[in-house]
Amino acid sequence: MKGYSDRVLRVDLSSGKSTVEDLDEKEVKLFLGGLALAAYRLYKEVPGGADPLGKENKLIFSPGLLVGTGLPTLSKSTFVFKSPLTGGFGRAVAGAKMGVALKKAGYDLLIVEGKSKAPVYLRIKDDEVSLEDASNLWGKNAFETQNMLKEKYGKCNTAAIGPAGENLSFISSIDLEERQAARGGPGAVMGSKKLKAIAVTGTGSVDYYNLSDLKKTVNHWVKIIKDHPATKVDMDYGTGEFYAWMNKERGTFPSRNWQWGYFHTAFDGKKQSGIDPYNWVPKMRVGRNPCPNCTKPCSQVVELKKYSPGTRVDGPEYETIYSLGGELEIDDPEGLAYLNYLCDVYGLDTISAGVTIGWAMEAYERGLLSKEDVDGVDLRFGNIEATAEALKKMAYREGKLGKLLADGSREASRRLGKDSDRFAIHVKGLELPAYDVRGIKGMALAIAVSYRGACHLTAGVYGTELVGSWWKFSNVDRLSFENKGFEVKLHEDLMQLYDTLGACKFSRHMFFLEGFPEMVYNATGFEMTHSQLLTIGERAYNIARAFNAREGFNRKDDTLPWRVLYEPIPKGVSEGSHVSPRELEHMLDEYYQARGWSMEGLPTKVKLISLDLDEIAEDVGV
Amino acid sequence: MKGYSDRVLRVDLSSGKSTVEDLDEKEVKLFLGGLALAAYRLYKEVPGGADPLGKENKLIFSPGLLVGTGLPTLSKSTFVFKSPLTGGFGRAVAGAKMGVALKKAGYDLLIVEGKSKAPVYLRIKDDEVSLEDASNLWGKNAFETQNMLKEKYGKCNTAAIGPAGENLSFISSIDLEERQAARGGPGAVMGSKKLKAIAVTGTGSVDYYNLSDLKKTVNHWVKIIKDHPATKVDMDYGTGEFYAWMNKERGTFPSRNWQWGYFHTAFDGKKQSGIDPYNWVPKMRVGRNPCPNCTKPCSQVVELKKYSPGTRVDGPEYETIYSLGGELEIDDPEGLAYLNYLCDVYGLDTISAGVTIGWAMEAYERGLLSKEDVDGVDLRFGNIEATAEALKKMAYREGKLGKLLADGSREASRRLGKDSDRFAIHVKGLELPAYDVRGIKGMALAIAVSYRGACHLTAGVYGTELVGSWWKFSNVDRLSFENKGFEVKLHEDLMQLYDTLGACKFSRHMFFLEGFPEMVYNATGFEMTHSQLLTIGERAYNIARAFNAREGFNRKDDTLPWRVLYEPIPKGVSEGSHVSPRELEHMLDEYYQARGWSMEGLPTKVKLISLDLDEIAEDVGV
Repeated sequence: MKGYSDRVLRVDLSSGKSTVEDLDEKEVKLFLGGLALAAYRLYKEVPGGADPLGKENKLIFSPGLLVGTGLPTLSKSTFVFKSPLTGGFGRAVAGAKMGVALKKAGYDLLIVEGKSKAPVYLRIKDDEVSLEDASNLWGKNAFETQNMLKEKYGKCNTAAIGPAGENLSFISSIDLEERQAARGGPGAVMGSKKLKAIAVTGTGSVDYYNLSDLKKTVNHWVKIIKDHPATKVDMDYGTGEFYAWMNKERGTFPSRNWQWGYFHTAFDGKKQSGIDPYNWVPKMRVGRNPCPNCTKPCSQVVELKKYSPGTRVDGPEYETIYSLGGELEIDDPEGLAYLNYLCDVYGLDTISAGVTIGWAMEAYERGLLSKEDVDGVDLRFGNIEATAEALKKMAYREGKLGKLLADGSREASRRLGKDSDRFAIHVKGLELPAYDVRGIKGMALAIAVSYRGACHLTAGVYGTELVGSWWKFSNVDRLSFENKGFEVKLHEDLMQLYDTLGACKFSRHMFFLEGFPEMVYNATGFEMTHSQLLTIGERAYNIARAFNAREGFNRKDDTLPWRVLYEPIPKGVSEGSHVSPRELEHMLDEYYQARGWSMEGLPTKVKLISLDLDEIAEDVGV
Repeated sequence: MKGYSDRVLRVDLSSGKSTVEDLDEKEVKLFLGGLALAAYRLYKEVPGGADPLGKENKLIFSPGLLVGTGLPTLSKSTFVFKSPLTGGFGRAVAGAKMGVALKKAGYDLLIVEGKSKAPVYLRIKDDEVSLEDASNLWGKNAFETQNMLKEKYGKCNTAAIGPAGENLSFISSIDLEERQAARGGPGAVMGSKKLKAIAVTGTGSVDYYNLSDLKKTVNHWVKIIKDHPATKVDMDYGTGEFYAWMNKERGTFPSRNWQWGYFHTAFDGKKQSGIDPYNWVPKMRVGRNPCPNCTKPCSQVVELKKYSPGTRVDGPEYETIYSLGGELEIDDPEGLAYLNYLCDVYGLDTISAGVTIGWAMEAYERGLLSKEDVDGVDLRFGNIEATAEALKKMAYREGKLGKLLADGSREASRRLGKDSDRFAIHVKGLELPAYDVRGIKGMALAIAVSYRGACHLTAGVYGTELVGSWWKFSNVDRLSFENKGFEVKLHEDLMQLYDTLGACKFSRHMFFLEGFPEMVYNATGFEMTHSQLLTIGERAYNIARAFNAREGFNRKDDTLPWRVLYEPIPKGVSEGSHVSPRELEHMLDEYYQARGWSMEGLPTKVKLISLDLDEIAEDVGV
């Protein structure tokens, strides 16, 4: 098929063998590529009840359909796996150069299965595929590992886990040349398979349906993106550009483990917060590290001076400004960047790691954790050194503190008990992102229902809610709990499509849905309308929920943290707002109707069959 | 295109000219044929605010895509028009032989526009198209008219209006060889254009994509239908087969103008109701009159003995057993068949005519109408002769009674005043069908929201509700008002698809959705999945609602008759049940979420664009 290599690479770590399979044309028609195709394979190939860290689990890497086309911001590749953190469907997406390399090597999909006895890494050079001894890499951090592979192989693109993945931390990430596929513990899945890294060199190319028209489409969108007003601010200050606005104008930036809805110690009586990119980017930026084919790179590479001087790291994204900044009451940009760096090299999800430490700091402050419980670390809010120490302990599962925190806030609060789950900020085990959903109720619904747990990207509805309009939505009231079901559903379907095509979600101001039919057509020759494209997104979403249904998830799991349900935002623009249990139930009712699911939150047979997922309908549809 | 003639016939009655246009390939891909294609054309071609009886209104006749293929029960053709009865989108569907003839004559679509000064009829014989003088037909009844055309032209298939259509009754029908396209007043639209009839002879054939596979598919479904247990009862007793069950087991057969939820005077203390087909079919049936390509004909042709002896008529359908039977407390099958016959020859919708007379009988009984107001007719419940007289007066707009009732119950109650709208049984002006929705709450939602007004076929959800399961639906509770939004939406989308393909709704026990992809493929070569087919249904539904939105319809119009909202069913199995205003509002909330519309019941821009209806989104999307 045009736009495809038509090949799937399957690597069995148990036997050490790899095989090449034909891409199934029927599957391509239903799922296209990227997330949707990977989701279907995961559902089909990983049986219900599989141990996430056992040999039955698989790690599937799937470049977005349009990755490598040259289309601007079409850069995203997806890992799917059964998540050790949530026990459900795991998805972790990154702007990975390895996605482009895999396509050039001649594969549309990589399926890693089984378990190796000794540490290995996977080397792919076009048709040459081998598992290599990784004993010299095991124990190295994620950056070191990839640098060693690059030294050895020269031109290649890589993925690697750090010590957190090796030590099976449920919140461990995979690093892909300083892009992280982080959420839900994909690092631990790699670690459990004793797969330290992947290094791909691809020298071929993909045959597109109409290359000259595709180039025209590339130029068309490059120009649109270049001229778009959001491009300049994204490039100048990165994704944290709206940090001050979120605090001051919306009052929905959670801080101090969600005790606050804005970062009051960084703003009250101050001219500027230290971790505001408008403060630190001009002083600290030394370069950029764009995702493949990005013409509006938001990455801000900074150099550390105080902590680990001379070290360079991709500067903190908006999410990290929250999780290792406001969440912990840290307002020092040097300290923040340093903690960000530590997470990256250890291979920890910055969001989950920060929020888990925030939980620990609150528990410590409340006296629920003694000094002895935390190995003597001075776990007070705002303490950068203590946070650094905690991160190391988590990555190495070291000491009492490391063992307590290594698997995220849900596990930590289970281990501690003492009602400490009341301030554990997660849904389904996944820690919340940087949106105080007490004042963004559509977003609250979105994180309650998201199949991978509390996630800002599964629906990506925060922008629409906070601005009050986007694309074809208008009159959206962020403080209302009504009329949110379809809104969230549509955003979810669209965002699953983004991950299927490989589109960066920061291009959603520019592409919307309208840009895709032409892109897909020129790449593949498939004539797809809006409805067909959105249906692919809806299919992916339903498969992921069907996966969860098979694991026993239902309405009771579509919930919110205690603090969101019962503690209103105490101060700021959104003062007094929270999502009451009654409001949540109303939103769930609306949402399940919009989805065509049962009121128990389970995909119905009729909806699954309507989406051409007959087998899955028979399997788990109600 | 395979499966199509690729031609649209446009007849302008103002100029007397006809033109042939190419079928638009882009439109075909989005709408296929039948209802969906016709709906799009009506939206596009009839401007907002057009007078339904003026020259801007159009009458579009569109055979279902699979009509004429030989596929069993694929027999339905659709008229669309702006309805004089509701002021909104009008749809009237019939198992019309003229649909097959039009296809054989080489046209996929017939658009009638403008207005003739003098009465004409439209003659189509393949490429020969002419408007002929109808002065000798004007004034004849619907059967006489068609018989005269058949005498003149020999082999042809016909449509005609009776006096009701000539006199612009809002509840007038079009007769197509004893199949009626009746609901919403299409007869008046023809009458307003002075178009008395249409006579089509087609001698060509359609070129199908794979004729030998199509024949195999035909044989496959003929066998399935033949073996299905519902086939025998439908053939033996017709659509009224479940009449006794509806009364005794469900208590949801409305009678005496909805004062009762079952026909108590026909059942209480009696062995069998007179109008039960199990009573009259064995005594009265003298033949059958199948729709084209029906292998399970439910028609029961009867011969009258008492009233108009020797007259033959297609025996009363289930709906007519209600509207001219129970609704009027008439339990005599001879009388019922006679009244049915009168409606057919006058060209009146049996449902609307009966329910309007039911309203008048109640008003008469309550003393709101005096003997003088009704021209001395003895308008008591149960009076067959009085009903016959009333029908004649309505068809000819004769006397005070005719003028009062000719335009249905909404107009009648407006004309009378005196709070008589409290027992006018309509939604949006269209009279309710034979399901006491007080005890079938999903069906109540369906008739509240249906774009053509109270209609049993737009969603066709009654079966699912009354049995508690169908196809992939189960655990449906007819007395609950919860969880109905998606259920109704899905049924609607599926039924719009039925009308697009031309499938009889009595085959929905057999085809479901699964039968269609292969049928469509063999006929046209289009590879369409379930989701694509359902999307076409959803598109049609959204276009019809967009049409209504353009006319100013919104949530306030999605309502129920006063009696349904405030008067519980007084007796029988469903005793005490009704749909409270609060329940209706809850169902509407759910339904709009399932539809992706605003809470005002208006199609949103985002939903319309998601359905590839960009122009309409710009036009009326909110």
